[in-house]
Amino acid sequence: MRSAQDVTVLRLGHRPGRDERITTHVGLTARALGADGVVLAGAARSRADTVVDITDRFGGPFDVETTEEPKRRIREFEGTVVHLTMYGEPIQDVEDDIRTHHETEPLLVVVGAEKVPFEVYERADYNVGVTNQPHSEIASLAVFLDRLYEGAQLDREWDDPDQVVVPMETGKKVVDPEDLEDAD
Amino acid sequence: MRSAQDVTVLRLGHRPGRDERITTHVGLTARALGADGVVLAGAARSRADTVVDITDRFGGPFDVETTEEPKRRIREFEGTVVHLTMYGEPIQDVEDDIRTHHETEPLLVVVGAEKVPFEVYERADYNVGVTNQPHSEIASLAVFLDRLYEGAQLDREWDDPDQVVVPMETGKKVVDPEDLEDAD
Repeated sequence: MRSAQDVTVLRLGHRPGRDERITTHVGLTARALGADGVVLAGAARSRADTVVDITDRFGGPFDVETTEEPKRRIREFEGTVVHLTMYGEPIQDVEDDIRTHHETEPLLVVVGAEKVPFEVYERADYNVGVTNQPHSEIASLAVFLDRLYEGAQLDREWDDPDQVVVPMETGKKVVDPEDLEDAD
Repeated sequence: MRSAQDVTVLRLGHRPGRDERITTHVGLTARALGADGVVLAGAARSRADTVVDITDRFGGPFDVETTEEPKRRIREFEGTVVHLTMYGEPIQDVEDDIRTHHETEPLLVVVGAEKVPFEVYERADYNVGVTNQPHSEIASLAVFLDRLYEGAQLDREWDDPDQVVVPMETGKKVVDPEDLEDAD
């Protein structure tokens, strides 16, 4: 989000066929919950178009990149590397430290599928578990970002959306942003 | 979780083939982040075995049910019904109210796929948006549960696990719980 160091989510280990929707959800969750961009590695590149399309329709800024060399990208990242894994330290124990790092340097949040190379564990400044239970990299990313930003991402505004959802107690309301301005 | 009214997650609108892994992640996220059970509706029943298997291995209690009549189940639920939807009221505006309800009555958290029948919006006591952006029902569920329990679910203990992950700064450590007791 604006006014802080960048947060980039790197999606590692996508398995074609099996992980298509999971990777899409990782990308959309990164965008919706305040990250500045996502990097899709290897076969996960196939999901880039969907995330770009949502950004075009619902607003940005949000960067979507692809890479053939994710491990190099992690190794050479200039900033704090956080790897979300069920084997890591409890988020509640390390989130304050990570938030302090994020005040002065960018974060790379690595989100893997089942097999993450050991060198990622070694390079990571923090291996972080959102519980030490098996669940979902999407869920872990969501809780991590919500805690990192302490909820501030929920109030962010988006640039140049084609459509805007107006929150409602019951039902669905989607408007053209120009109509929204007229109503002010 | 123990010591509060039950929270049950109901998975609605699973599309065979397309949503297999998404529904599995919904079930596992419900378990890991403190819900007391999940109800898998219609074709989502196919994912029950995976969630039961994880509960057998990593501990409970966590109920896994299936239903052919999810709408009836929602309609007749005795307690507060929360429907997570990008069209709903911002979570930050309603979470305190929902937490207050949860002190005295059970919660049913409805998590849909793309098309949710309008009667669900009408029956829900709260239609809640974790942002009004399109992202992931898994991410929405994760943030909702983390906020509902105010993080207390991260410290819960599990009954009768066959294996326990020991949090580590670097690497993976999984032990037999009997060995863990010996080390105390």
